[in-house]
Amino acid sequence: MSVPRWDLSTTIATSLTLEDIADATLAPEPQHETPVLQVVSEAFSKEYEAICLPLTTEAWKQRWSLMCLESSVPGASEEEKEAAERAAETWRLRPSFLKEEVTITRLDEAERVIAMVSEWLELDSPDDGIRTDAETALQQELSYASYLNIHTAILPPPRIRNRDYVASYARAISSCLRSTSYITLSVRLPIYDPSLFQRSSALYPTVHPGSPSQSLKSPPTPALVVSDANQDRQQTSETSLNATWEMWDLIRSMCDYNPRLTLTLDLSPALPTSLGVLSKWAAESVRHIFLPASTFIANMKGYPVLPKPTQAFLKGSMIHRPTIILADANAQKHARGGERAYAQYIRHLEKTSPHIQAVQKPGTVENFAQGYQDFLQAPLQPLMDNLPSQTYQTFERDPVKYAQYEEAMYKAFLDRPPDSTTLVCIAGAGRGPLVARCLTALERANRQATVYVVEKNPNAFVTLQRRQDREWGTKVRLIFGDMRAIDVPEKVDIVVSELLGSFGDNELSPECLDGAMRFLKPEGISIPSSYTAHLAPLSSSKLYNEARSGRDEKGLETPYVVMFQAVNILSGTKSSADGRCGPQIQECWEFEHPLREAVLDPRGLPLSNNHNVRSAKLRFYIPHAGVLHGLAGYFEAVLYGNVGLSIHPQRKDQISKDMLSWFPLFFPFKEPLYLPSDSELQVSIWRLTNDKQVWYEWHAESFLSIPKRLTDNDELLRPVGKSPPSIPNSPSGIASPLMDSQDPLGLSFFRRSSLIAPSLSSSLSYHEPEYESVKIGHTSLHNPGGRSSWLGL
Amino acid sequence: MSVPRWDLSTTIATSLTLEDIADATLAPEPQHETPVLQVVSEAFSKEYEAICLPLTTEAWKQRWSLMCLESSVPGASEEEKEAAERAAETWRLRPSFLKEEVTITRLDEAERVIAMVSEWLELDSPDDGIRTDAETALQQELSYASYLNIHTAILPPPRIRNRDYVASYARAISSCLRSTSYITLSVRLPIYDPSLFQRSSALYPTVHPGSPSQSLKSPPTPALVVSDANQDRQQTSETSLNATWEMWDLIRSMCDYNPRLTLTLDLSPALPTSLGVLSKWAAESVRHIFLPASTFIANMKGYPVLPKPTQAFLKGSMIHRPTIILADANAQKHARGGERAYAQYIRHLEKTSPHIQAVQKPGTVENFAQGYQDFLQAPLQPLMDNLPSQTYQTFERDPVKYAQYEEAMYKAFLDRPPDSTTLVCIAGAGRGPLVARCLTALERANRQATVYVVEKNPNAFVTLQRRQDREWGTKVRLIFGDMRAIDVPEKVDIVVSELLGSFGDNELSPECLDGAMRFLKPEGISIPSSYTAHLAPLSSSKLYNEARSGRDEKGLETPYVVMFQAVNILSGTKSSADGRCGPQIQECWEFEHPLREAVLDPRGLPLSNNHNVRSAKLRFYIPHAGVLHGLAGYFEAVLYGNVGLSIHPQRKDQISKDMLSWFPLFFPFKEPLYLPSDSELQVSIWRLTNDKQVWYEWHAESFLSIPKRLTDNDELLRPVGKSPPSIPNSPSGIASPLMDSQDPLGLSFFRRSSLIAPSLSSSLSYHEPEYESVKIGHTSLHNPGGRSSWLGL
Repeated sequence: MSVPRWDLSTTIATSLTLEDIADATLAPEPQHETPVLQVVSEAFSKEYEAICLPLTTEAWKQRWSLMCLESSVPGASEEEKEAAERAAETWRLRPSFLKEEVTITRLDEAERVIAMVSEWLELDSPDDGIRTDAETALQQELSYASYLNIHTAILPPPRIRNRDYVASYARAISSCLRSTSYITLSVRLPIYDPSLFQRSSALYPTVHPGSPSQSLKSPPTPALVVSDANQDRQQTSETSLNATWEMWDLIRSMCDYNPRLTLTLDLSPALPTSLGVLSKWAAESVRHIFLPASTFIANMKGYPVLPKPTQAFLKGSMIHRPTIILADANAQKHARGGERAYAQYIRHLEKTSPHIQAVQKPGTVENFAQGYQDFLQAPLQPLMDNLPSQTYQTFERDPVKYAQYEEAMYKAFLDRPPDSTTLVCIAGAGRGPLVARCLTALERANRQATVYVVEKNPNAFVTLQRRQDREWGTKVRLIFGDMRAIDVPEKVDIVVSELLGSFGDNELSPECLDGAMRFLKPEGISIPSSYTAHLAPLSSSKLYNEARSGRDEKGLETPYVVMFQAVNILSGTKSSADGRCGPQIQECWEFEHPLREAVLDPRGLPLSNNHNVRSAKLRFYIPHAGVLHGLAGYFEAVLYGNVGLSIHPQRKDQISKDMLSWFPLFFPFKEPLYLPSDSELQVSIWRLTNDKQVWYEWHAESFLSIPKRLTDNDELLRPVGKSPPSIPNSPSGIASPLMDSQDPLGLSFFRRSSLIAPSLSSSLSYHEPEYESVKIGHTSLHNPGGRSSWLGL
Repeated sequence: MSVPRWDLSTTIATSLTLEDIADATLAPEPQHETPVLQVVSEAFSKEYEAICLPLTTEAWKQRWSLMCLESSVPGASEEEKEAAERAAETWRLRPSFLKEEVTITRLDEAERVIAMVSEWLELDSPDDGIRTDAETALQQELSYASYLNIHTAILPPPRIRNRDYVASYARAISSCLRSTSYITLSVRLPIYDPSLFQRSSALYPTVHPGSPSQSLKSPPTPALVVSDANQDRQQTSETSLNATWEMWDLIRSMCDYNPRLTLTLDLSPALPTSLGVLSKWAAESVRHIFLPASTFIANMKGYPVLPKPTQAFLKGSMIHRPTIILADANAQKHARGGERAYAQYIRHLEKTSPHIQAVQKPGTVENFAQGYQDFLQAPLQPLMDNLPSQTYQTFERDPVKYAQYEEAMYKAFLDRPPDSTTLVCIAGAGRGPLVARCLTALERANRQATVYVVEKNPNAFVTLQRRQDREWGTKVRLIFGDMRAIDVPEKVDIVVSELLGSFGDNELSPECLDGAMRFLKPEGISIPSSYTAHLAPLSSSKLYNEARSGRDEKGLETPYVVMFQAVNILSGTKSSADGRCGPQIQECWEFEHPLREAVLDPRGLPLSNNHNVRSAKLRFYIPHAGVLHGLAGYFEAVLYGNVGLSIHPQRKDQISKDMLSWFPLFFPFKEPLYLPSDSELQVSIWRLTNDKQVWYEWHAESFLSIPKRLTDNDELLRPVGKSPPSIPNSPSGIASPLMDSQDPLGLSFFRRSSLIAPSLSSSLSYHEPEYESVKIGHTSLHNPGGRSSWLGL
């Protein structure tokens, strides 16, 4: 497969303004035909690789306001108003610009330009008319950008204070995505509502809310007008911190995860020192990062550097190759370094990013996996399919996996009596890597052995024969056939196999080894002796889109092998305080070999495959809001004694560091499931079987712990302690009407007296509310009956 | 369309037991060949129309337990255990019954029989092995029932105490639905967890939880074993009351709303006097209602009657035609009336059900709509399509609509000077019903008029010509053509139209009347003068299934006209206490005619259709948990003065009682959205237009109000007052690391001291928690760009 290798150069762009263009107009000796060509050329000469430029001028804003905002000319006569409305209607029928209303008019001016859409367009205005006209203006602007071959347009952000109209904003974007064909729309959003911390930046000054028309009449106003500048810090809740991500989530969902919709994340606001609450952005399509010079602070020598949390976030983001947009770098905000110091500093961050360093270091999984990040591969079916030699070769390259196998065999041999001859069976030898390791281990342990080598792939069996001739000689005996069907001349002491998949059992290791256990002496051992499957819930717009863009609708009910990159694990690193939820990554089930107490048929095979059915019900704590797109699957195996294999993210480095052979498994969900902060996710997964197939089914439910809501006959009561308490006026202690009628069983129902906590009768004293877990959502059952994905026995 | 009319006879069934069959075996003079034929025949002779019968005997239970439950024979030898396991493995490979293990063996025994599946099958056992074997046994039983041509099998309920394994129960049912082809599976569930009220009934005695194997060894045990018999009433929360519905919701969802999956609702538990919390069952597929004799109480004379709440619930349910299953009716639990008294009482309830009475009364909408309940019709496109005469005829039958129009015209004429000649235009006359009413109104008001009659349907225009010849003569002048294109000889005083759809504007009345307003004098009026569109959120498994079973995947993005029946409106009848949410049914927008201040082209038509764009953002309070499947759309119109038309459920009887012409509109959602109790639903809806089409787009988001969660740098804190409070051990007041570094702007972030409420430092004093609204879910944007459904201009 031809895939791109990592390109170190993150793109760095500069954001230019109308003023920059105006300045160029006044330049004494212009070297280019137009002011735009002048500023663009200057930017490229400063080694910026892209330019952000507003597409429209002040003239367009004035004409649009005059046409579309009734209040734009206070005291206008009726005739003037009618003329404006007539002009607006004419414009609505055929939207178009006059040449003075746009900054760019030539194709050569637009090269490497990212268009900044007019930031005064109120796509989230509460006023239907203004919003509709803003949408028309946006369509017009995007149409013009497309005409100029501009590939990306950055949209003005929705405004926190217009939260109620984000859905309308999103609907307008969805409409624009349908009416354009290739241009990428990028929604500019601050990483969180900057008003939470009362910090004003160049981009987001704190402005008091005004009517839309007012804000349009004030001098060039930033589009994001924050909700309440006087908020005090006590109100900083998780929900407020999430507000901008939640807007993005709504927009992205309402645009149906359109791949032409991306994010321009504005890092102007100061970031928290712990980035947990921000990790969700890693699962989103962050194409640009906006960094005004005012975000930088000066280091000891006066050069611009970023605050530590912003550094950390940016280093973490580098793996996603965003374009970094620097703004105001020419404003001389820092004493030393000049304009180029900002870009140089960004390059420095890129080079020191641990992710980038890992990618560049040979031998790491990150280096090995280049080009495979977030690439969905169907899991192997080595039992049904005979693997090609190329696949074997790729796996044989793993230096760690086979070293671990050799170590396990070495230790197993050491535990054998020194003068004994050990009988070994390599079950499923492929092209023979385990045979070679077995012989080395025997030599190291100074033990004798007879090695039976079983392989069912007729093509690989040719390679085995060749290696026997050239390398192994009579030390090994080759047997051709399926380990579930053939016979080995004598019972062996050790069966060695490498049948594990990313999820442990997902390449049918349990079923194959059930067959191979026939060869084993009663006290014989299996290498591996056991393996476990592990799961964690994940979010990833990328993987969700990849999975559903597959061949057919079954794509979202099939597990994939994938090297995760634009992925965020949603579960918290710690278990929940009440102990209901387990750790971030949880074990589903285990398989052990040999199987004890199986009922066998005369051939020594289990009568049914019933004993290989498994199921798990897991509870994950979700600290920060996110969207569930799937489950990450991992395995761990015990080969022998303390020698193992692991791709469990938290343990792999202790057990089998730098092992390359397995990427994780990804179980997708058809319907993204929204999970609020502080919620609980319950995952059910089943490993099922019939006489021909094995398959997984999976399902998830979400819960939120909230104060218990008591109920009476008529209406829900507010939870105890909820403010303001709503006390029914009726006297308490009313008996049910049933009590008054004939009721031989003495039934009564919902007696008010027993349901209203006494404390509620005084609004001044509150009692500790009792909490209960409330269901808030679920997915459908995935892959029922193995209809979309199964493993052939 | 041929549709069934209402059949009064609700089916009444009796539930027979193994004991009943055993008694028949001992009958001295059997009149039938087999005991089953004997009991079945006796039941039919008592006028039961169906029989519920257990399909398996005690012998099967014993064999299954011996094979599949390790603990079934305490003290068994190793050999005995191995023999049992071998027998189990053999059974798993080829599940089959011995003849003693089933009650029915002949086809004639199974006629009109509903099979009761072995109620000891633990499909929700926490033990993987037991659960898998129970599923195999269920498949075997269903396969046998299918062999006997039995059409319905009632399944044992999942158990409250095994809530964690309901997903496994559901998965097993989903598997059975796939492996059978026509048999209906009905899940038996009590209407709520009966243990909440410590009432033991014949079906649900209070049993202490035991291990699965224990419960299997005890004498015939009911499958539903309640969680905690010692719960006290203080714990009766909305969530507990919802528990059984929530289990059903999970099962139904995981089985992907399979139409062969139904509910058998057990009414044994005493019901609340207010049924609000139970109304959700109306939206589900309740096929059977289980009523043991112990549910009945005795009236003054000693005859069995039902408690009032159960009566009310049952009367309300009659419209859905469930089969009522009576159990223990022969146990002589009541002094008077004998066995037949129970069925007679059910018939009495059916006859006195207000719904049934409404259906039987000619002239009601319920009577008119028979056969159309929950039947999805595509809305008319009378502008694009020319209606057939049959459609006109159906609408002309409405006695109320045209009476209202006549009254409106009459009042409008009365307001004209007595000696004037009024110029009237009937815009869109169809076959002429408004023309006739207009002439009658003129006569009643004693006014003169010239009546221009405009119609664009060439076929209907033939009818108009005929009526002019025969009835109207020169009083009217016919004009053929589209009201947006033709000319009327003179400007008129009144334009009368009947262009309204179920949602008001959804048959393009606004656009058509924009054209007709050209004929109107400056002070002229339109009848109707205005109309409004209204929405309410609804739940209905039936409508969801109908919408998605349509022609293509667009079926779930298209509004339908439908007479609601198996539907539950989810919004609360009252606004929420905090005033955030509006009433149960909310107004979206209004259209008024004539349009003032429009910019017109030389022909008098609006330049663009921009002024007919509308949008609404509505907030509904959801008191009781439910699943959102769509929106119910209604309209109200002001014809003239205080004369109007309304299909608004709460106001139609005051405004236009018994009007038949419009069923509500149904906007479906593609993805059912789970809404917890006490939540908030925000609905966005847009009416959009381009130069060729008009369409709606819609979207919903859900929120829950929960105690505000404060956050610090590292982890989420528990909400203030949450129990047990988790106090971080670190000292409060730590400055952010940013404070210690160079930070010229003086930034700080998430200072602990300001975020932890002081009260948290003592676990004994709790303060009133502050609440905030937290997003918990959303749907996708429906019908973006009118891609699935639009109205042609």
